[in-house]
Amino acid sequence: MLSSELPTINALKTPTSFAWVEQAISNLDTILLDHSQCERKAAGVALNMIFRYPSNAKMVRELTKIAREELEHFELVNQWLDRRNIPLRPLQPPPYGAGLKAQIRPKEPERFLDSLLVSGLIEARSHERLGLLAAHCPEPELAKFYHGLMASEARHYGIYWVLSDTYFNREIVRQRLDELAVVESQLLANLHSEPRIHS
Amino acid sequence: MLSSELPTINALKTPTSFAWVEQAISNLDTILLDHSQCERKAAGVALNMIFRYPSNAKMVRELTKIAREELEHFELVNQWLDRRNIPLRPLQPPPYGAGLKAQIRPKEPERFLDSLLVSGLIEARSHERLGLLAAHCPEPELAKFYHGLMASEARHYGIYWVLSDTYFNREIVRQRLDELAVVESQLLANLHSEPRIHS
Repeated sequence: MLSSELPTINALKTPTSFAWVEQAISNLDTILLDHSQCERKAAGVALNMIFRYPSNAKMVRELTKIAREELEHFELVNQWLDRRNIPLRPLQPPPYGAGLKAQIRPKEPERFLDSLLVSGLIEARSHERLGLLAAHCPEPELAKFYHGLMASEARHYGIYWVLSDTYFNREIVRQRLDELAVVESQLLANLHSEPRIHS
Repeated sequence: MLSSELPTINALKTPTSFAWVEQAISNLDTILLDHSQCERKAAGVALNMIFRYPSNAKMVRELTKIAREELEHFELVNQWLDRRNIPLRPLQPPPYGAGLKAQIRPKEPERFLDSLLVSGLIEARSHERLGLLAAHCPEPELAKFYHGLMASEARHYGIYWVLSDTYFNREIVRQRLDELAVVESQLLANLHSEPRIHS
């Protein structure tokens, strides 16, 4: 896998600690339940962007595809929950999402750029963590499932990057991505007590 | 088509006037643009219900399917816009959606029932109107497209009805649907000045 094709991992400032892997592997049912929420949220965020910027044709086209895929993954994760007899229920989210959302500057066009980059960073981190689950999950079928999803997350990161690069000056994008990536890693520096995809 | 299979039209109190058909046929580009917004909104409404009632497994399963289909239709309508060189842009919505939303009682479980029934009625009306477009549109390809979509709208109406019937007493559902259908028809009694799917 060439880094020029999938610049995902490069965007992240700090790799995930092994403590997270241990926590996740010991709590696979909770991780699946949280993963379901993550897919639902990712679809919702893409759809909200389409609502907020309805005239940006390229963005609308790409984010519609992303939203459709996230909903497909939401369905797949929910089938896994069903198979394991885990009833759907809301989980308290970790501070990660709100922490990143707080970085989105309220004024346009900064809000648009930050929204794209924050979504991209979350996809990049999801790619990394689903990859870790694929590598370390003791259940081969579930590991295979995570492996299947991780490529989409990397692709989604790429799309958010390309969209940023479409609507903004590349140097501004790079600099802001760098700043946001620092915060993203800080938010994960201390393992959250509850097992989550982004704990 | 048996009415027991597709009770769509039965739910509506008043059929659409021919004045609407004339207005729509004379403004096909605007109707396509508004249709795009309708599909996007329908996906958003289904997703919001999943967010609000995340533990209702049957509802989550059915509305995920609906949201995926609405996004697929959103893509298809946008491809039609693209083919006709109509740039994406937001349109002022007609009073219909807000008028129906105002009928949703704020307290649970009434809010849940009303949300399902309002969505169902909008699907029923969309089914009727896409059928009228299919029958009267002077462009055969576009007429065929509308014909292809109208069956989904009827199916979506059916799903919202079945979900209401799953979570609520049938007599209560029937009575409330009847009340809401009266309002729905009143909202369309006077043709809105701007051409819209629900003008």
